[in-house]
Amino acid sequence: MTTQIAVVGHGDPPPEVARLAEEVGRRLARKGATVVCGGLGGVMEAAARGASRAGGLVVGILPGYDRGKANPFVRVVIPSGLGHARNMLVVAAADAVIALAGSHGTLSEVALGLKHGRPVIGLDAWAEVSGVVRARTPEEVVEIALREAARSTDT
Amino acid sequence: MTTQIAVVGHGDPPPEVARLAEEVGRRLARKGATVVCGGLGGVMEAAARGASRAGGLVVGILPGYDRGKANPFVRVVIPSGLGHARNMLVVAAADAVIALAGSHGTLSEVALGLKHGRPVIGLDAWAEVSGVVRARTPEEVVEIALREAARSTDT
Amino acid sequence: MTTQIAVVGHGDPPPEVARLAEEVGRRLARKGATVVCGGLGGVMEAAARGASRAGGLVVGILPGYDRGKANPFVRVVIPSGLGHARNMLVVAAADAVIALAGSHGTLSEVALGLKHGRPVIGLDAWAEVSGVVRARTPEEVVEIALREAARSTDT
Amino acid sequence: MTTQIAVVGHGDPPPEVARLAEEVGRRLARKGATVVCGGLGGVMEAAARGASRAGGLVVGILPGYDRGKANPFVRVVIPSGLGHARNMLVVAAADAVIALAGSHGTLSEVALGLKHGRPVIGLDAWAEVSGVVRARTPEEVVEIALREAARSTDT
Repeated sequence: MTTQIAVVGHGDPPPEVARLAEEVGRRLARKGATVVCGGLGGVMEAAARGASRAGGLVVGILPGYDRGKANPFVRVVIPSGLGHARNMLVVAAADAVIALAGSHGTLSEVALGLKHGRPVIGLDAWAEVSGVVRARTPEEVVEIALREAARSTDT
Repeated sequence: MTTQIAVVGHGDPPPEVARLAEEVGRRLARKGATVVCGGLGGVMEAAARGASRAGGLVVGILPGYDRGKANPFVRVVIPSGLGHARNMLVVAAADAVIALAGSHGTLSEVALGLKHGRPVIGLDAWAEVSGVVRARTPEEVVEIALREAARSTDT
Repeated sequence: MTTQIAVVGHGDPPPEVARLAEEVGRRLARKGATVVCGGLGGVMEAAARGASRAGGLVVGILPGYDRGKANPFVRVVIPSGLGHARNMLVVAAADAVIALAGSHGTLSEVALGLKHGRPVIGLDAWAEVSGVVRARTPEEVVEIALREAARSTDT
Repeated sequence: MTTQIAVVGHGDPPPEVARLAEEVGRRLARKGATVVCGGLGGVMEAAARGASRAGGLVVGILPGYDRGKANPFVRVVIPSGLGHARNMLVVAAADAVIALAGSHGTLSEVALGLKHGRPVIGLDAWAEVSGVVRARTPEEVVEIALREAARSTDT
């Protein structure tokens, strides 16, 4: 059992957000953390690509049953078949949640993460939601996530 | 199959919010709508009480397996055993979602409802979330919810 | 909160099995029990029809999100979006489970019901599964189910 | 994405069954397959131990939210919080299911696997359930599982 960090965000993000996600994935992998994501495209795929290319382990929890829908950087595929309820599984599998810009699906993951008592760190995003910790760079968000994850696991 | 409207909000609300929830439940029942809620206390219980006393049908979708945890105004109990993922079931069972003030759990229901394409109407709450329709009184929120529910069912 | 009894069985049963299911639904409704089922066709629809025509309340827990897939005798529709995992919800919502002949889906409900500690009564079916109580007629299966439900609720 | 094989069976098995499970896990790991299990004790832990000690990757999908409940050989922990419904996730995550002796929980996984169209191979067990492929030794069950997994992925 290693540290598991979820990375959530838009399924069809602007290029700059995708670049941030990839950098977050890369840094998490270098620190030895497993990246958990929703397994599809956009921020999910960018984070997975970053982590995978840095030699990290990537878990993708899909909404449907079709394993073939996972992006190619996911190594462990969990085809949940739970629809939108899979968002809860993504955050439950994480010691901490890193949230990039996104829409209602991402907001549900931010809210479910907080409800579940997980540290949620927003990278240039979600500062308006009470309880979200703010970070400005991939380096900073990964540092905070790993520190908070270690603290929450201690409890 | 009748119109099903979810009422979501704080599990431990201030008295004024509970009064609003009860009034919402009462008005929904009088219009013949089934009230769907999370089955526990606070806004869930107040809305259930209002609907039940007006002769309406109330469905409670619980996070755990214990039917005994349902508030006494719930007639159909769905003890989901799904934990926080039950929030998704509450909104999926609704033709429209009425959201009162709440915390992270309620926010997750607002976000999941919008993600799922359900009309979400906030009663003095959640105006900061894009996509939430605003209402100021129980009368208004019920009127909008039933109108939006009819429209979404037509589609 | 009234007694909730699940009726499970084949989605495309022979006519004789469908007739049994309808009779089971009718008898449950006359005893004041709410019928819980998977909401689709076959045994689910026959039991729902029997209960509905006798004035009973019917709950259908669907695998998908589309409420329109429910058979016309379901009054409360829970479109779970959980795929096959909805089978667990059907038995969790029941004080006792009545199982008619069926295939692998029905077997999963029998097994999950037993695992969850629910009384499971087979009507001319599932006698080979340890823990299943045997019954030979709709009258007998309803009598046993209501008796076992009362006992399990007492605990 | 590599081949994922679920191993299911009793949570408190006789020693001989645990030995079989460990041998199955070892052989799966040597063939490069990822082992998916329910993450707890008994057959789940034995299979995980066998796979882990042979250098394989082990995924444990827990019924609850507490990651600490996973056995020490699980590397990727999915604390589903779904209760018994997690049994569906175990089989949905697998290209094929290897079933050892067990009780009602295992039977539910056998039935859900078959319902979901997954090859289910019983190792000295479940021969009475139609659709279960029979195997007599760990060597044979792993060979059949990998062959059937390859075939089902082709489709």
